[in-house]
Amino acid sequence: MNFTILKKDGAARTGLIETENGAIHTPAFMPVGTNATVKALGPDELKGAGAEIILSNTYHLYLRPGHGLIKNLGGLHRFMCWDRPILTDSGGFQVYSLALLRKITDEGVEFQSHIDGSTHFMTPELAIEIQASLGSDIFMAFDECPPWPVTHGEVQKAVRRTALWALKCLEKKKSMPEAGKSALFGIIQGGSYEDLRRESLEGLLEMDFEGYAVGGVSVGEPKGEMWKTMHLMGPLLPTAKPRYLMGIGDLKDCMEAVGAGFDMFDCVMPTRNARNGTLFTSEGRISIKRTEFKEDPSPLDARCNCYTCTHFSRGYLRHLFLSKEILSMRLNTIHNTHFYQEFFRKMRESITEGRFLEFRRQWETVEW
Amino acid sequence: MNFTILKKDGAARTGLIETENGAIHTPAFMPVGTNATVKALGPDELKGAGAEIILSNTYHLYLRPGHGLIKNLGGLHRFMCWDRPILTDSGGFQVYSLALLRKITDEGVEFQSHIDGSTHFMTPELAIEIQASLGSDIFMAFDECPPWPVTHGEVQKAVRRTALWALKCLEKKKSMPEAGKSALFGIIQGGSYEDLRRESLEGLLEMDFEGYAVGGVSVGEPKGEMWKTMHLMGPLLPTAKPRYLMGIGDLKDCMEAVGAGFDMFDCVMPTRNARNGTLFTSEGRISIKRTEFKEDPSPLDARCNCYTCTHFSRGYLRHLFLSKEILSMRLNTIHNTHFYQEFFRKMRESITEGRFLEFRRQWETVEW
Repeated sequence: MNFTILKKDGAARTGLIETENGAIHTPAFMPVGTNATVKALGPDELKGAGAEIILSNTYHLYLRPGHGLIKNLGGLHRFMCWDRPILTDSGGFQVYSLALLRKITDEGVEFQSHIDGSTHFMTPELAIEIQASLGSDIFMAFDECPPWPVTHGEVQKAVRRTALWALKCLEKKKSMPEAGKSALFGIIQGGSYEDLRRESLEGLLEMDFEGYAVGGVSVGEPKGEMWKTMHLMGPLLPTAKPRYLMGIGDLKDCMEAVGAGFDMFDCVMPTRNARNGTLFTSEGRISIKRTEFKEDPSPLDARCNCYTCTHFSRGYLRHLFLSKEILSMRLNTIHNTHFYQEFFRKMRESITEGRFLEFRRQWETVEW
Repeated sequence: MNFTILKKDGAARTGLIETENGAIHTPAFMPVGTNATVKALGPDELKGAGAEIILSNTYHLYLRPGHGLIKNLGGLHRFMCWDRPILTDSGGFQVYSLALLRKITDEGVEFQSHIDGSTHFMTPELAIEIQASLGSDIFMAFDECPPWPVTHGEVQKAVRRTALWALKCLEKKKSMPEAGKSALFGIIQGGSYEDLRRESLEGLLEMDFEGYAVGGVSVGEPKGEMWKTMHLMGPLLPTAKPRYLMGIGDLKDCMEAVGAGFDMFDCVMPTRNARNGTLFTSEGRISIKRTEFKEDPSPLDARCNCYTCTHFSRGYLRHLFLSKEILSMRLNTIHNTHFYQEFFRKMRESITEGRFLEFRRQWETVEW
């Protein structure tokens, strides 16, 4: 993996991440493809929306259909027919948020599957093995992501265990020649405690990761805490490497984070909201079920050139949503995904042209 | 509407129906787009599958979103962004099968909506008004479709009422200049009673419909009864007009019916089965959830060139189905729709080349 910074505008920057499977322009938004599919979309539609990278979930794919199966079918790219870069999370976040936790030791985490209750033991080594089987372009180190709120002592334990596991992940990956072309990012924990964030960062900086992620944000803490963490970490993260703020997708948060120097984002927000009928437009967020759209012949967003907006009326989209039609979820997801990719493309453009502040000002007044 | 017979092979024939919105090669299979969408597919995918005409449901669209709304949004073609022909059923079948029936008189049918329980009164005149608002290319006359089994006396009443209503539909349509470019087909009832089928046909032949449909089949009667009706009616129907066997979609039934001289078919079978994971292939019907497909890298059907078969493996399709992913329903529906359209295209080709019997023999051994 190679990372080049193309242009800076304040702390915001545009860059290019180059991988075996193609390049990613940053700041980049990664649609989430949990079960080896971005819900409701095919790979053609993701490309059409302009997505250059997607995120997929190690935890889910390990449980179903199993990473061995995906490896035998040629890896995740071939399995889901997506020939652009893939970042896989480490499963850390899901183990803590979805599964029933049984026991955490320095070796790993015992948990029960949210699908069938079966017991599993996830270790840093296994997390890397799974990601190597999937063949993703960017691996994430296995971390301990504590819930919120939690005591300083608890978070400190998680920070130290995360550092221990990060090292194990690095060593495991080095031992696997087949993982040689993939990058590995470390994840900084520390909750809302500044000293622990600094400790976590310092520990990880000693190891040579190809990118750094800030995890343990958007886990229930007030937005102010998250912004504080973002502004604390931004200036401390290595300049020459990609900086990834995990799980953040609110567009105002993304702008704030880009302003603090972050390069990568992922969130289910655009796709999940789409399925719930909440759509992002250049004039703000709208709910497609509103009565005022009943006989509205206009497109969702007159300034959008996605398939949905160039073919269908708000009246039709409202009808599909109220009728619970599958096409509703697809057309809405096409639009929201396109809108997000376009938003990020324009944000990159504004940085390139040295008018990022103007871009932010333009979008900050919109109601999301 | 214009109908030309292109070639005959025994009683089977290929033809061309020409409408304002394009031509339909017969024998034709019409995918069902109940709520102004063929479930899980966009119009682009329907075209890609080769569909030249779809069927949409008057009953459903009348209840939701309402034919007035669709008319105000430019008619059904523009509403759903489908610029090829549309046939709308009359609502007769749905009033009897979905709604709670309250009262049938010679004026019409009082029923309660299956969506919200609201009371409605459907008349032959209203059925035509609705279809005119939708702006479909082919209207169906409003009929009384009795359940099965039912006495001779009951069916006789339905046959006579259907004839009375057929005349009302013809007259109503004549009075509406905006419906001038659309065709109107009559529906023959009579259940499994030969004398009543003949009576129904004779009554309708006196009125000058642009096509004739056989209704009241596949309503629960044994398959033998349905084939008997099909073989009785085939030779009696006018040669120069399209013959439509309503609601039939089993491919062996369709072949039998084409052999008896039928030209048009509709059924939810390919689309509904797709959503349930049942797929049609050149080697027969398969259930995608079967364990043997777990690590199968091959396409659903190696002889199929649809988007699904040219991009994804059985292993991936099985995974999507078991994960209840929306993409599963879409990819399966693309395949089944494509398979049906290809089946009909090859059937037409076999008639054109005078080898329809050979075509039937080839497919009769396949397990559907």
